[in-house]
Amino acid sequence: VKFKSKFALAVIFTAVSASAIAGKDEDQQIKFRQSAYTFTAWNAGKIKSQVVDHPETYNKDQVIAAANAIAAVANSGLGALYGPGTDQGTGWKKTRLKPEFFEKPEDVTKVALAFRDESNELARVAATGDVGAIKTQFGKLGEACKSCHDKFRAKEE
Amino acid sequence: VKFKSKFALAVIFTAVSASAIAGKDEDQQIKFRQSAYTFTAWNAGKIKSQVVDHPETYNKDQVIAAANAIAAVANSGLGALYGPGTDQGTGWKKTRLKPEFFEKPEDVTKVALAFRDESNELARVAATGDVGAIKTQFGKLGEACKSCHDKFRAKEE
Repeated sequence: VKFKSKFALAVIFTAVSASAIAGKDEDQQIKFRQSAYTFTAWNAGKIKSQVVDHPETYNKDQVIAAANAIAAVANSGLGALYGPGTDQGTGWKKTRLKPEFFEKPEDVTKVALAFRDESNELARVAATGDVGAIKTQFGKLGEACKSCHDKFRAKEE
Repeated sequence: VKFKSKFALAVIFTAVSASAIAGKDEDQQIKFRQSAYTFTAWNAGKIKSQVVDHPETYNKDQVIAAANAIAAVANSGLGALYGPGTDQGTGWKKTRLKPEFFEKPEDVTKVALAFRDESNELARVAATGDVGAIKTQFGKLGEACKSCHDKFRAKEE
């Protein structure tokens, strides 16, 4: 079993290094964070659909899973994907990170903590099944997202 | 606050619909699942580094966060991203999903449940801080990944 296990790992991580994380380190970081936020957008979209746009489709377990997924992203240590120089480069696409990100560390900390705290609170509220409270907290998470985008993300070209 | 909240949501989801989920629905599903797995690969890479390759760098909180992130992906309802026809199409890149995926629903269920169960078990074991047990369980998750890749993912072109 040990050999099989090691073999599986070798195969998987050879595949990873040959595709998902190909390219120079800065571009890898950009690709990973673009993936993290796109996965987040999918989950946020599900919550928006079920608690804002079409509350008749609300499914408690699905909203809990989506909120937990967003919180897991927010708690995953994304800071490691914002190395020096990563305001330039291409992951899945050209990064939109503004150079200001590296000039305003206090503002970065503030938006990062807001994303973490509002996400964890959303996961907590989602578990209660109180749709009104989930909607309110989802709005707060949206403001945390927007605050970072306004400060540190360039407009779509 | 309500208006501000709604405005933030509108801005965020306009941005999402204009970029992350642009294109036809099949391509959106492919992009979301590629994002989910790339985010998973980043977290698996951190665990591999800290418990397999460089155990002297083991950080309990970081491994817990990474394991929770993988489990959250596995529990997020990825099945919704495998709609009919999504063995063709381009998300961030051309999909490698084999047509066999749609011909062997029992095998799909089997690999999906293995991914979910081994991920949840890894999150449970990570919380104990027992590095040997984490390594063993990480190997089991690797086998679950490999099993799906072997059956349903085409080789890199």
